[in-house]
Amino acid sequence: MEATAAEVDAAVRAAHDAGGALADRGVRAALLRRAADLLDGAGERIVEAADAETALGPGRLTGELARTTYQLRAFADVVEEGAFLDVLIDHADPALTPPRPDLRRYKIPLGVVAVYAASNFPLAFSVPGGDTASALAAGCPVVVKAHPDHPATSELSAALLRRAAAEVGLPVGVIGLVHGFDAGLDLVRHPLVAAAGFTGSVRGGRALYDAAAARPRPIPFHGELGSLNPVVVTEAAADERAEQIGTGLAGSMTLGTGQFCVKPGLVLAPHGPAGDRLARSLTEAVSDTEAGVLLDHRMRDAFIDGVRERAALPDVQAPVTPGAGGAHTVSAGFLTVPAARLAGDEGTHDLLLEECFGPVTVLARYTDDAEIGAVLARLPGNLTATLQLGAAECEGGDARPDADADADAGVGTDAGADVAEGGTGPAGDGGGRGARLLAALTPLAGRILVNGWPTGVAVAPAQHHGGPYPATTSTATSVGGTAVERWLRPVAYQDTPPALLPQELREDNPLKLPRRVDGRAER
Amino acid sequence: MEATAAEVDAAVRAAHDAGGALADRGVRAALLRRAADLLDGAGERIVEAADAETALGPGRLTGELARTTYQLRAFADVVEEGAFLDVLIDHADPALTPPRPDLRRYKIPLGVVAVYAASNFPLAFSVPGGDTASALAAGCPVVVKAHPDHPATSELSAALLRRAAAEVGLPVGVIGLVHGFDAGLDLVRHPLVAAAGFTGSVRGGRALYDAAAARPRPIPFHGELGSLNPVVVTEAAADERAEQIGTGLAGSMTLGTGQFCVKPGLVLAPHGPAGDRLARSLTEAVSDTEAGVLLDHRMRDAFIDGVRERAALPDVQAPVTPGAGGAHTVSAGFLTVPAARLAGDEGTHDLLLEECFGPVTVLARYTDDAEIGAVLARLPGNLTATLQLGAAECEGGDARPDADADADAGVGTDAGADVAEGGTGPAGDGGGRGARLLAALTPLAGRILVNGWPTGVAVAPAQHHGGPYPATTSTATSVGGTAVERWLRPVAYQDTPPALLPQELREDNPLKLPRRVDGRAER
Repeated sequence: MEATAAEVDAAVRAAHDAGGALADRGVRAALLRRAADLLDGAGERIVEAADAETALGPGRLTGELARTTYQLRAFADVVEEGAFLDVLIDHADPALTPPRPDLRRYKIPLGVVAVYAASNFPLAFSVPGGDTASALAAGCPVVVKAHPDHPATSELSAALLRRAAAEVGLPVGVIGLVHGFDAGLDLVRHPLVAAAGFTGSVRGGRALYDAAAARPRPIPFHGELGSLNPVVVTEAAADERAEQIGTGLAGSMTLGTGQFCVKPGLVLAPHGPAGDRLARSLTEAVSDTEAGVLLDHRMRDAFIDGVRERAALPDVQAPVTPGAGGAHTVSAGFLTVPAARLAGDEGTHDLLLEECFGPVTVLARYTDDAEIGAVLARLPGNLTATLQLGAAECEGGDARPDADADADAGVGTDAGADVAEGGTGPAGDGGGRGARLLAALTPLAGRILVNGWPTGVAVAPAQHHGGPYPATTSTATSVGGTAVERWLRPVAYQDTPPALLPQELREDNPLKLPRRVDGRAER
Repeated sequence: MEATAAEVDAAVRAAHDAGGALADRGVRAALLRRAADLLDGAGERIVEAADAETALGPGRLTGELARTTYQLRAFADVVEEGAFLDVLIDHADPALTPPRPDLRRYKIPLGVVAVYAASNFPLAFSVPGGDTASALAAGCPVVVKAHPDHPATSELSAALLRRAAAEVGLPVGVIGLVHGFDAGLDLVRHPLVAAAGFTGSVRGGRALYDAAAARPRPIPFHGELGSLNPVVVTEAAADERAEQIGTGLAGSMTLGTGQFCVKPGLVLAPHGPAGDRLARSLTEAVSDTEAGVLLDHRMRDAFIDGVRERAALPDVQAPVTPGAGGAHTVSAGFLTVPAARLAGDEGTHDLLLEECFGPVTVLARYTDDAEIGAVLARLPGNLTATLQLGAAECEGGDARPDADADADAGVGTDAGADVAEGGTGPAGDGGGRGARLLAALTPLAGRILVNGWPTGVAVAPAQHHGGPYPATTSTATSVGGTAVERWLRPVAYQDTPPALLPQELREDNPLKLPRRVDGRAER
């Protein structure tokens, strides 16, 4: 079943040859919509196949399929509107020194995109997922490297995408599928592959990133590798909503048996009675959670070993011990540790700052804001960072607009600024403690939430699913309307006769595209 | 004079510490404008220093300074308008399944940017150049690695930038300057450096790119490495304008003693009498060109050796032999070769497809369009590609809208498609031969010109100065309004209380920023 080098080459060449057929935006939108319809139509079969391979359950998989087809249709809308072409037109200006020529810029597809499917989303981040949908939307043919945990689901999805291509008059080569570890490496090294998208582990993703960078002609590699997704609970929030936060956290960290890339993996909660209430509530809710099945036995082993190793660290306790459940299952749980243990430079507890895939989180109890800042300063990049605030903190009611406010609060100028890496943001607006904490979290992640939970990544135009390394290997997003930007490059035409210009750049704008003319948005 | 590791570290830390002060867009615009004023005010001293170090001449350097200060002011305008923040707002929609949260996205600065200065532009692509200007515009502090060919000009420019910073109330650490080869490597490897910009050679740029990719936390590396800048002259163009094209080409390839990154280095011209006229005109114009001084003796040696090696290849002739002039100068010249020699897979003449820095170009004479397509298929990526067309070809007057037209013309489906890598573009519009040639050039470069010459890169909102590798190591531009995008990353705020939002994302849009709301541009 693993693809040989010759088979990878054939898939890439077929995709490359089919690329020109994707030049028409109308046919791309039709392909995406037809694919969504066919996937919906085969929903029962797909969910059955995916459940057999992943044990994620029909409920979760039915939701994932709906997300996947919604996403395909959303990218069809993006293609049709055309704002992603980023049309810029500067008219010639002979009065300038030197005289300015006529310049017309838009974005064109990069070429064949390699997509590396994820284990934990057999649909939404696999063959018919966001990387594929956004690449096709951009006009790029795709070759997917299937995840070994769900080969049959991958084949079924690919067959439906190829049928959709055929039905809208496209060569089926616009979608290729290969299996196997070596095939994945062959793919990223293939001279005709122009870019890659990846969702998976730090180890696998970094190996492919390195291979992409080491090519004679390097290519963009957009990888989502790993994320701890820190949560900061203020004293006020715990005072007001300890039980709600404990229950919400338990729900988010055990959702899908803790196998989401945005699972909250580190929670900074206050010492003292309010924090204790939160911990008790978390204990109850997690204890009530049913054991679940992980995606495969390697992940189960890694989870059990990872938890054991973390629990053995000094001062780490396990109010609810996560680990092996009956049969093939694992049970959810959480660990606690004094935040001071994570704050120092000794690195004795750095393992707790690494993602542990599965239903476990770490509750780090802090004594003051300085400890929060010190822990945040030691975190790697994340997809999300979450703040649980009290009601007054949300109103900016305790605002201290004097210049020393940051230093007083302990997050900000001292420790916070160390992680603030030049970012603008909420702190710049002189708000209160809530705003300062938000500013301290901003450098750490691509999505910042207040009083919510990070699981459930909305498919929406303004979504950003990405973040500082290792969350992603680039500054791009893999979810949301702007995911299409990853597969494009700009080209500018200078003093080109009107009759030769692509329609997208013609003066009379026959395609009614949004554009900026002479440096301003056209109205 | 070379910076030690400790000095590099100090410069980066000073820049990092100064980053927060750049959060305010108003102060960034003020810094850029004040820097432009100070540079203009010290113009005489700067031009003198730069001429002493580069021998580029006061005329050229006065123009370069004007370009540099225009560019600084243009980025001030970009900062103030704020479209680059790319504000996206999606309102919550509880009616959707699953319900959509409120999402508000904009772009924030990445952090400290390392800038590697170029030899051939001691101002516009060095300390006060486009990389520095766009990084400061984005809100990122900068540490420049000076080019060894013009250290005094670099120090003078940096002092003026730092004075501008102080005058607008910013820490002078927002601009750092280091010298030395090892310092350059230390810089790209520094943990607090968040991105890099580079203009220079393939060898130097690739080494730094590799170092950036090999970091524990890889960073974006936007490098401009090298470009051949091919030109295609059609039979009709040569028929109509042989003398004009020959003279224009001579002017472009010898401008600045051939030391521009967009120098036309390969010209495909027809066999036969029209092409002969072009060659004669080029011969006359190049013979009339005065010998010039190259930037340093290493470049002079490389030029002389490079020309000698190329001229020694079979079937290569030198109607005007380029090479060593008197004293420290070199004389301009050009080589000719049958295009068929470049078209095959043997690779015997591949050296002619590599950039040769200095006043030389290669005139490749083709017998038919198939040879054009075959040569184009073998070219690496370029900053520019130029088409010289006849009047009728510009009107699309010979359009053949039948599906086989591409194959008939020999560029397009057969050879052209091989280089067309899935691009949309002019050919998609069913135009004539001119449009098909334009479509064949589009995959090769970031800027496409018709009936012009690539030297003279306009500083304009729609400019794109970049292209497929090795022209650049990313899909970004280093000139023009969108150069600022290289130093930003998006962040999305989910369900964040209005009082805590950064001003840029508030519902009432107090900063009057252009934005997209619920997937559409706001009017």
